[in-house]
Amino acid sequence: MTYCIGLLLNGGIVFASDSRTHASVDNYSQFCKMTVFERPADRVVVLLSSGALAGTQSIISVLKQRADLQDGTPSIYNANTMFDVAEVVSDATRYVERREAAGGQTSRLVFNASFIFGGQIRGEQPRLFRTYAETNFIEAERDSPYLQTGETKYGKPILDRVITHETSLSDAAKCALLSFDSTMRSNLSVGLPIDLLSYERDSLCVTRRRRFEEGDAQFSQLTHAWSKGVRELFTRLPEPSW
Amino acid sequence: MTYCIGLLLNGGIVFASDSRTHASVDNYSQFCKMTVFERPADRVVVLLSSGALAGTQSIISVLKQRADLQDGTPSIYNANTMFDVAEVVSDATRYVERREAAGGQTSRLVFNASFIFGGQIRGEQPRLFRTYAETNFIEAERDSPYLQTGETKYGKPILDRVITHETSLSDAAKCALLSFDSTMRSNLSVGLPIDLLSYERDSLCVTRRRRFEEGDAQFSQLTHAWSKGVRELFTRLPEPSW
Repeated sequence: MTYCIGLLLNGGIVFASDSRTHASVDNYSQFCKMTVFERPADRVVVLLSSGALAGTQSIISVLKQRADLQDGTPSIYNANTMFDVAEVVSDATRYVERREAAGGQTSRLVFNASFIFGGQIRGEQPRLFRTYAETNFIEAERDSPYLQTGETKYGKPILDRVITHETSLSDAAKCALLSFDSTMRSNLSVGLPIDLLSYERDSLCVTRRRRFEEGDAQFSQLTHAWSKGVRELFTRLPEPSW
Repeated sequence: MTYCIGLLLNGGIVFASDSRTHASVDNYSQFCKMTVFERPADRVVVLLSSGALAGTQSIISVLKQRADLQDGTPSIYNANTMFDVAEVVSDATRYVERREAAGGQTSRLVFNASFIFGGQIRGEQPRLFRTYAETNFIEAERDSPYLQTGETKYGKPILDRVITHETSLSDAAKCALLSFDSTMRSNLSVGLPIDLLSYERDSLCVTRRRRFEEGDAQFSQLTHAWSKGVRELFTRLPEPSW
């Protein structure tokens, strides 16, 4: 499994992804699921990937190779809008899916790569999307300011209680960490490190990116204070009468 | 969908169930999913049902009819232990499943009835079980004091942060309500009324049972105070540094 979140806010976009991959429970490892395409003063595009590693790695390699071409091939670096970026991501996904399907007649594996991605291209507002395994995609907006992939349920209640489009970038980053904490307590296939990136609107560069490794003092302190606070709050609430 | 919880505690058992049934989104209705078998001073057995209504209603009718027989047919009222009750529930489930399978060759519906049930029979400790659709079953114990069925994920984080085997009955009842609130905010197929029952160890009768209807003042007050408290707690926590 995987857990990734993107939060589209007035002040910019917050991205967070876990780092656990696994093939059943006895073969798990650590891979970064956050990829950043940055050309300062022009664009920042951040991708969070979910799905089988062979598929998502290939798609990201295709996106990177196309981004380096100078021959006019549509790419993340020559897209005019984030919508065009969505089509580029979607095209690369279809390309890898077709390649895998051609060689995979004996496999029962279902191709399931999906992405949360967003950022800003000079001249546009910050925008946030997610693709589905079917390669179609949706865009976040004011009424539904966050998008999740992977193990989405355990970490959703805290997002719903706190996040609106008006939430500050730093509150959104804090909330994302708590959402990961709730998820990691219940699903072993979501694990540290967490990659966290806060993109500030109109900055057109990445200034805030941080990795929370196993045992990170700040993450431990935050989640400990949260657990303690939740238990104290719970104790103060009125008991049901019968 | 459905959401049911049973919590096995030092002081007894707390049961809670929602009341929504539906056949896709355009046909939903309200049915009580909590059934109580009570013979004061001898036994209390509470069942919470999940799965297609046709199956669960039939199983409960079979359990009730068998309980009324005086001919020695194994039933909830003549079982010597809660383990025997589990076999009675399991047998009734298999009976209905076979009947439906015999007539259902043209149907693609999968039989999926499952139950959380527990209580106390004179001479035993309070015990709590859940059956699976396959009719096998597990029993709660000190290390894993609660069992859930249906839409289990949204409401699990609050249970994990609060509930231990030592939690009081009234705290467990309060926690169950908050767990339902988190679930109902995210899944439309789980809905009020909530049936809540708190069985006090060794009482061998039901003294605390309450239904929370739509608009219940106490439930609204509790969930409002919780949301407000969670947001305030969130605000007090330290912001992540970069």
